[in-house]
Order: sequence, then structure tokens, then C-alpha cells
Amino acid sequence: MNIPRVSYPRIVIIGGGFAGISLARRLSKKEAQVVLLDKHNYHTFQPLLYQVSTGGLEPDSIAYPLRKILKNFPNIFFRMANVKEIDAENKIVKSDIGDLKFDYLVIATGSETNYFGNQSIEKHSMAMKSIPQSLNLRSLILENFEDALLTSDLDERNALMNFVIVGAGPTGVELAGALAEIKKGILPKDYPDLDTRLAQINLVQSGDRVLKEMSEKASKKAEDFLEELGVNIWKDLRVTGYDGKTVTTNTDVTFETATVVWAAGVKGATIKGLDAQDYITRGNRVVVNEFNQVKGFDSIFAVGDIACMQTEDFPQGYPMMAQPAIQQGKQLGDNLVRLIDCKPMKPFKYNDKGSMATVGRNKAVVDLESFKFQGVFAWFVWMFVHLFFLIGFRNRAIVFINWVYNYIRFDREARLIIRPYKKHHIVKSEVKKS
Amino acid sequence: MNIPRVSYPRIVIIGGGFAGISLARRLSKKEAQVVLLDKHNYHTFQPLLYQVSTGGLEPDSIAYPLRKILKNFPNIFFRMANVKEIDAENKIVKSDIGDLKFDYLVIATGSETNYFGNQSIEKHSMAMKSIPQSLNLRSLILENFEDALLTSDLDERNALMNFVIVGAGPTGVELAGALAEIKKGILPKDYPDLDTRLAQINLVQSGDRVLKEMSEKASKKAEDFLEELGVNIWKDLRVTGYDGKTVTTNTDVTFETATVVWAAGVKGATIKGLDAQDYITRGNRVVVNEFNQVKGFDSIFAVGDIACMQTEDFPQGYPMMAQPAIQQGKQLGDNLVRLIDCKPMKPFKYNDKGSMATVGRNKAVVDLESFKFQGVFAWFVWMFVHLFFLIGFRNRAIVFINWVYNYIRFDREARLIIRPYKKHHIVKSEVKKS
Repeated sequence: MNIPRVSYPRIVIIGGGFAGISLARRLSKKEAQVVLLDKHNYHTFQPLLYQVSTGGLEPDSIAYPLRKILKNFPNIFFRMANVKEIDAENKIVKSDIGDLKFDYLVIATGSETNYFGNQSIEKHSMAMKSIPQSLNLRSLILENFEDALLTSDLDERNALMNFVIVGAGPTGVELAGALAEIKKGILPKDYPDLDTRLAQINLVQSGDRVLKEMSEKASKKAEDFLEELGVNIWKDLRVTGYDGKTVTTNTDVTFETATVVWAAGVKGATIKGLDAQDYITRGNRVVVNEFNQVKGFDSIFAVGDIACMQTEDFPQGYPMMAQPAIQQGKQLGDNLVRLIDCKPMKPFKYNDKGSMATVGRNKAVVDLESFKFQGVFAWFVWMFVHLFFLIGFRNRAIVFINWVYNYIRFDREARLIIRPYKKHHIVKSEVKKS
Repeated sequence: MNIPRVSYPRIVIIGGGFAGISLARRLSKKEAQVVLLDKHNYHTFQPLLYQVSTGGLEPDSIAYPLRKILKNFPNIFFRMANVKEIDAENKIVKSDIGDLKFDYLVIATGSETNYFGNQSIEKHSMAMKSIPQSLNLRSLILENFEDALLTSDLDERNALMNFVIVGAGPTGVELAGALAEIKKGILPKDYPDLDTRLAQINLVQSGDRVLKEMSEKASKKAEDFLEELGVNIWKDLRVTGYDGKTVTTNTDVTFETATVVWAAGVKGATIKGLDAQDYITRGNRVVVNEFNQVKGFDSIFAVGDIACMQTEDFPQGYPMMAQPAIQQGKQLGDNLVRLIDCKPMKPFKYNDKGSMATVGRNKAVVDLESFKFQGVFAWFVWMFVHLFFLIGFRNRAIVFINWVYNYIRFDREARLIIRPYKKHHIVKSEVKKS
């Protein structure tokens, strides 16, 4: 990788998510050369991916060009690259665009969907961790309804209109709520010649309540909201397989469906060379100390979802969410400056700002430390916070207009099959077979 | 195709472009069953595709769900289908989702890129007639700059930053202007470690002026605007080949480039069964009479780009643009109602509302019948007219915000490589080989 060597130490950051961006910004105009690597040329605002999948938002309005974020920082270089391996001993990052020496390395690769080793589920279900994945899901949902119109086989039609969402964390809950609103508000108008009342939205959860990371009160209220919207909630039910037609579970319950969305877990996106068992703990996360230093290394760090910082309050590490990632990124930025200046680093302290999830129009739940509330006000708070954390004025303006429009018109206009999913998928598997 | 037969006659429309939509709307709540077929589930506002390619607009804001356009018209059915063949004798449309009987058929399939039989150009160049194509071009442009950063081979770097646009109609001129603005305003900030002054935008034209369908004054002014922006205009130069590396021409001039955009011609998108030489004329268009009736058929019609209605003023048929398509669609709608009511049809009369093209910020040319003007005012008129013809309030609002933002900030934020073009392209060709 042809990046000029300067006299300042070189900090390489892998990943332009919440953690990587917060960190890079903190290092702007500091006495360090920073190289940010990401496989995309944009930052993704993951909390709103489900709205892309359900036609409420354009993908472009929740993505932001990484080069634009960094453009006023002459000491920060960006390269679009797929990192293949880390050679920790020789301090080299190996990627598809060449090798890069580092003085300090920060792993901010985030997380990926965790199928817990179940290959049939991985092959046949949809994930929602990136913009292309969300667009695939959007296309599939719409294609299913187009296909449902064409078949005269009742079982097939029901399977096409049956949606199974596995996992009732914020992603699963928000997607289930959005699909239920589409069923109610949009399908009857879009498909007058289809009995869309037969569409089913199933939210399957292995635990005994939805949003289990939040308060019991929030869980209870979220369940009420989901039921109001007509979502079928399945608790204490574990999905064991999906062959593209039938979902099997640990009980007698099965679902015949053309669409399974897997939102049941994430795991750290580890990189070869730093994935040995010594550093890796539960959920594929890299064990770090209170300075985000990877166990056993002085100059290799990890922040965000991939990092597991075990504390008394959080023995399993901080939750894999935006807030810890942003805070760790900022803190590590300051610590790296201290390290370069030969000053002692400061330990990370997590400031828990609470959590929230939205189910639908006027329906959200918010847990703050001292105050928990649900309903219309929570929904406005949810929207305000998400607008605030979006990057870029234009993105905020466009998301805001979309929300206002969708609120007034009970509509979601981006229901476009820009790249058909089924066709490509079928072509791909056929090619693989031959 | 399981569409119920009713006592009203069935009108099948193939294509949901300007012509198909105007026609369908005119037939709403009339005594006819209308079936609209399109291979996409959305209508595309083609005049703004170049802004999608150059990161100025989201694809979702220039597309509109066809089902939403039709939702209040209970007599109109939509099916997403690829029409394969027309059996004119038995009045059947054959598609990938089954056959459909018709009483009246309207072909509104529009036009496709015309490579004039040159397969090497077709294989290696980019077109810009659909949203997926425009997104591919957007990705390729951005990928080229990322790659230019990585290579130390000067020739390769120059080829990656060299753009050749063939054809100086509105599409070619607008794209060249937009690329020139990106070169000037965005590249130096996004790629500080790349000498982006070396980027070249070449607009190649076989005729002796750009925008040859417009007035000489408009052509002259558009050339001035393009030169101001630093576009290299090549006139009287005909591109004869492109092998993915070198563009050859009918003279000694050649271009080494990684990107050729082919905007040099369109042709009617004919369908098997109605593509016999009897009905087809220059540019693959279907010959129609003054009622848009296809030569030799009573109940088969063609409207828009695909239709060639030869008149004294337009011996080659009306220009392949939005205005004739919209006007023919409306007129044919009224005529079909007359036909069903056993009343005589009225001949089509084209109301030429003029033409316009934009080169860049504050730079546009407008030709009205009695008044031709250029510059800032023309640019505002261009924007107003395009906003007016966009479908949907939300789309208008979002395009407007994007334009205001881009105008104030000299920016285009949608520079996102959502689906890398090169990788997929390479994978595709490798798969084909094996």
C-alpha cells in the first residue's frame, strides 16, 4: 500500500463503524499518521437498516462517505481494503490491496451475524447487518408479494406471505413492527387482488421475553405494542433449522415460510492472526484490558463490538451497541495521544446513557437509568436521538422528511425492487452447482 | 396469469414509463379492465439518471412504485413480468409469469441503448438507461479513483482517471458537466494524496456540434459551458471500438481509459412477434398511424419512444423524449375509450413544449418555440420543470433538498459504492469462462 512514511508514528484503524470513526476524529491534527481501512467506502448507520429493508428510507440516507468524514484531516488517510490477516509480530496488516506496516493497530471491525454453526440457517435465511443485505431483504419481501399474486397454490401463497423473524432484540422487534405496519397500511392498497390479511409476522424468541437487555417494563410494553399490531410472538421457542421451506424448532412448532430473517445473535468479526483462543472469548470477541489493549500486546487495541472489556458491572463485556463503541473510540483516541507523548493512559469508564427500541408509529420504549417510559413521547425521543447520531446534515434532513411524510401519509414509498434478490440468488446457486 | 375476466374489454399495456403511466391514468375508472406489465415494480424518471450516476441523488428518489401510482384505480391491475413474445393473431401476450389474452394491446416498452451492432463496445462500455445501470456507473467511477490511489503505474493511473463519454445529446452533455464539477469540487478534497488535476473528461461526438437536436445557439452556449468546466469536446470524431483499455476512432485519435459511457444512441425495445420488418423502421421503432395504431393491426397500438409516427414536420417520427410519450399516452387513453364506445378516434397532434439541457450549476440551455435562453435563469427553469414532472410529493421534496444542499455546499453526498461494480463484473466473467 503506497502510503508515504512520515516521522510520526502510524496508527492503522481497521473498520469505519461507530468506534473507528470516533477514534479517527479524535486523532485529527494530532502528531500521528492515521490510516483507516474499511471494505466499504462509507460508514453505515446500522440502527436504521431495518427501515431500509422495509422501504421507509433510502440506503443512501443512512450511509455517509468515509472520505467526506475525513476530508479536513490531513493526517488521516483512507483506503478501501479487505483486511486478510494481521502479522502481530512484524506489525504488518495484510489486505487485498497490499501490506501495511503499523506502529499501533486498532481493530474496530465490529460484529457479524452469528448462526451458531447452523449452516442450513446461514444458507437460507436473510441477515440485516449491512446495506446490501438490507436491500436484499427489501427486494425479497416485495418479490414475495408479487409471487403470491401469481400462484394458485394456497400453501405456497401462505408461505410467501409468512414472515419469521428469529430473535427479539431491538432489530427483531423493530423489523416485526415495521412489517406489521406495512401489512396493515400498505399491502391492502398495493395488492387489492390479494387477501393480505393472511400475511403473518412471527417473532420467535428463545428467551421468555422480548428486548431482554432492557427493563421488564419495557419488555412488557413492547410485547403489548407488537400484539396490538398483530405480530405473533413466540417465546421460549428455539429455531433449530430452516431448509428454505420449513422452519423447525425445539418443539413441535414448525413454520412454512419463504422468508426467515435471522436476528438471533452477533459475534465479533475477528481477523486471521488475532483469532487464536488466547485472546478470544465468548461471542468471538477479543479480550481487552481497561485501556482497550488486546491481551498480550502493547500496541494492538480493539474497540467497539469486537472488544470484550470485562468489568464488575459487565462481566461479559459491554453490550455490542453504538454507545460503548463511540465512547471507547473517543477514549482510545485520547489514550493513543498520551501513549505517543509517553504519558500514562486512562482507564475506560462506560457512561450508560440507556437504551431504547421502537415498535411502530407512536410506539417506542425507552430505559434511562432513573426514568423509564413508553409510548408517544418515547417514540419522539427515539426519533430525535437517531437523527442526532446520524452523520451529515443532508442525511438528517432527508431522514426527517421521510419520517414526517411516512407519519402523515401512513406510507413508505421506497418499496422498490432495484436489484431483484431471488433472480440473482437463483442464478448464483445455479452457477455454483455447475 | 390469474387475472379474472370481466365483461369489459381488457387492455394490456406493456411498460410503465412515461407513455404507459399517462395512458393507464387516463383509463382509470373507465369501462375497461387494464393490465399494466413492467419488468420493474417502479417507474423510472430517466432524465435524472445521470445524477444518480454522479452521486447527486439517491436512486429511490427518482423511482416510484407502480402499484402506488395505480392504487386508487380498481380497474387497473399491475403484474411484474418480462414479456417474451406477442401472439398478435390469437391476441396473447406471453411472459415469464404466464400468458395473457388481450382485447387491446399497447406497446410502451420505450427504448434501449443502441450499440449499432458493435459487440466490443457493448461488452466493455457502461450504459445509463436504468437505475441498476446508473448505480453500476456510480460504483465504477468511485472504484476507479480508489484504484488510482493504489497503482504506481502512471499509465494505469491516467487510464483510471480518464473518462470518455460517447454521444453529446442531453445525457452525454449532462453527465460530462456533472463529472467536471466533481473533478473540480469534490476530488481534490476526497483524494488529497492523488493528483486529481490529471483526471480528464472527454465528450466525443460524431456530429459537428453538441445537442444537435437543439438550436445552434443552445449548442454553442452548451459548448462554452462545457469548456469553462474543463471538458474536452471532440467533434466530428466517431468511436469505432473499445476493448476495455483503448478507444479507437475513425481517425488517429485514441483514448486509453477504464471508463467509456455509451450515450451515442437509443433504439426501440421491440418484442418478438412484433419485430418483423413490415412494422419496424429506422432505430427499431414500430410504425404507427396518427392514432398510434400499429400498421396492419386494429387492436394493437404503440406509444412513446418505441412508436414511430411519421408526419410532415417529423418525417423520422417524434423525438424519443418524455413529452411525446406523455402526450401520446394521454391521447391514446382517450382514443381507446372512444373505440370501446364505438366512436371515431382523434388523430394525435404533438404540442412541442421545447427542449432543455443542463451542463452544471447555473448553466443550462432552454429552447422554447419563440424564446431561447441560457444561463442561470435557464438552469432554474430546468430544475423547476424536472421537479414538476417527477412523480410523488416525497420524491420532489427529497430531490429539492438534495439540490439545495448540493448548490450551497458544492457537494454530492451519495458517493457510495453500495454494490461494487468491478468485483461483480470480474466474478461474473470468470464464472462465464469456467
